[in-house]
Amino acid sequence: MNRKFLAIALAAATTLAGGPSHAAHSASDYLRPAEAPAPADNAVTPERVTLGKALFFDPRLSGSNWISCASCHNPALGWSDGLSTGTGHGMKKLGRATPTIVNAAFNPIQMWDGRKSTLEDQALGPITADAEMSQPLPELVKKIESIPGYRSMFDAAYPGEGVSGATIAKAIASYERTVLSTDSPFDRWMRGDPTAVNDAARRGFEVFRGKGNCETCHSGYNFTDNGFHNIGIKDPEGHEDLGRYNERKLAILKGAFKTPTLRNVAVTGPYMHNGCYRTLEEVVDHYARGGDVKSNLSPDMKPIHLTDRDKADLVAFLRSLTGAPTASIPQLPQ
Amino acid sequence: MNRKFLAIALAAATTLAGGPSHAAHSASDYLRPAEAPAPADNAVTPERVTLGKALFFDPRLSGSNWISCASCHNPALGWSDGLSTGTGHGMKKLGRATPTIVNAAFNPIQMWDGRKSTLEDQALGPITADAEMSQPLPELVKKIESIPGYRSMFDAAYPGEGVSGATIAKAIASYERTVLSTDSPFDRWMRGDPTAVNDAARRGFEVFRGKGNCETCHSGYNFTDNGFHNIGIKDPEGHEDLGRYNERKLAILKGAFKTPTLRNVAVTGPYMHNGCYRTLEEVVDHYARGGDVKSNLSPDMKPIHLTDRDKADLVAFLRSLTGAPTASIPQLPQ
Repeated sequence: MNRKFLAIALAAATTLAGGPSHAAHSASDYLRPAEAPAPADNAVTPERVTLGKALFFDPRLSGSNWISCASCHNPALGWSDGLSTGTGHGMKKLGRATPTIVNAAFNPIQMWDGRKSTLEDQALGPITADAEMSQPLPELVKKIESIPGYRSMFDAAYPGEGVSGATIAKAIASYERTVLSTDSPFDRWMRGDPTAVNDAARRGFEVFRGKGNCETCHSGYNFTDNGFHNIGIKDPEGHEDLGRYNERKLAILKGAFKTPTLRNVAVTGPYMHNGCYRTLEEVVDHYARGGDVKSNLSPDMKPIHLTDRDKADLVAFLRSLTGAPTASIPQLPQ
Repeated sequence: MNRKFLAIALAAATTLAGGPSHAAHSASDYLRPAEAPAPADNAVTPERVTLGKALFFDPRLSGSNWISCASCHNPALGWSDGLSTGTGHGMKKLGRATPTIVNAAFNPIQMWDGRKSTLEDQALGPITADAEMSQPLPELVKKIESIPGYRSMFDAAYPGEGVSGATIAKAIASYERTVLSTDSPFDRWMRGDPTAVNDAARRGFEVFRGKGNCETCHSGYNFTDNGFHNIGIKDPEGHEDLGRYNERKLAILKGAFKTPTLRNVAVTGPYMHNGCYRTLEEVVDHYARGGDVKSNLSPDMKPIHLTDRDKADLVAFLRSLTGAPTASIPQLPQ
């Protein structure tokens, strides 16, 4: 029995071609990178991670002193918030869904519209945005400097650099580089354990790589090409979101958003840039019908004939990608 | 040297009388109770604690799906919020400071005004209050019932009882019974380790029990008599808070609030029912001058002559009471 499963697993992992527009892959395509890359001036050190973790969980980083990074990138909810779109200062609804930060460290470009490249570039954005944490940077630096516990943590993490926007961002980025997917059933299967996933997930992986054509965009360990695609998502009336086009004025990028990771997708709904789908089943249906809004549609988007079993199998496969890291809550410096 | 410290410690712990209105105490007065009492129909079990912890960290318990119990009783900030007064739905400012829930399990009466007695009575209050988590109970029960992971957790914790306001409250209360102070330097000193606290803290403990008269109200393991006292706190103009008087119409209870625990007081500021003091030094000064508002003042409140060293020593003693528990963040049921 185990031998039979192993044979199926290896077949799926090593020889499956199927998809019309991509070559065969092997299990090694899904091996986790040895480490999350860090810039030369911000190598990950324990002191930087400890500091960054404190900052990540500290509501004093917001103007209200009530919202922390973890309020929306909530480790209890796959490091996202479980909402269609985010919540900001004054509990106003934001325009886009909160992406998980799990494995963001592997992405060469950040945000739905890619307007930030590194984690360091990204970190101060939500903190200082009026609509999000609403904390002007100069006052933040003063606030953090006034907390003796932080002063010594910054000294240990960035000797001689002091508390600044740059060191705050670098520390948070260092912590984010440690927030990585843990072992999922899929990973155990890829390493050769045929019992790690069920038959439906195995079949779903075939659909994913075969006729589903999902790997065109959701490729590699982190299941993303980090590219931008218009997949025909309908925005609410009067709230058309141009996505990547706001950053680069190419017609093909109108309504295009960054391909999100699929790791932990079962625990990071709702889905899409505007959180329009609550379930993975709805997501699969969206792709099966080739999207809803046809203007500027990515050339890869076309209706796909999927049977009910194909759809259920795809969902089973997606559920096998759950390996969500947890966190202990730090006690914040005083 | 150690012998000398030990002698001082034992003297302070066993023979110190000093205070005008109370008898000598011994180190055993500060021994932690064997366990937090639970009602007969809600004995603490691992299943109940696991369920209660998930509920405690789950923002889906709020109408906005964004605020959890832990948003304000934040383990990173001594299970309080670091704010003068709490923050509620829509990020509106609430009228009173958020008390820590650490050791609330030892209290026979809950809330600043004692309007709830048990943890079970208290748990649904903030969830359903419009101004706080703004989640009507019938919809909450439906929401929780719709999450398959929760259904099985309720079955395991409260077999046959189902999801209801009562079982939600009982589970949260069960978790709170596990959120208890950890070993503080003071506790280690009381157990006989003379090096656990410094000279200032030792002297501060003498002031605390002696001329400071602090033990009149801040007594026993949890440093509270769970009584209600008007200590002459000035409320902001036009916002006079009658406190316990709202619950019991006795003149002496006008402006009286429950004595809070002093455990972890160094990490649970700001202080007083309205968070009017940011530092322990300000709190000590308040007592030294016998409070500010003299009407309905508790008979125990009178100016106390404290030297600058007495004051600093008291603060050092209060800082020795820090043993704040931490928590790992649960992954919430889906």
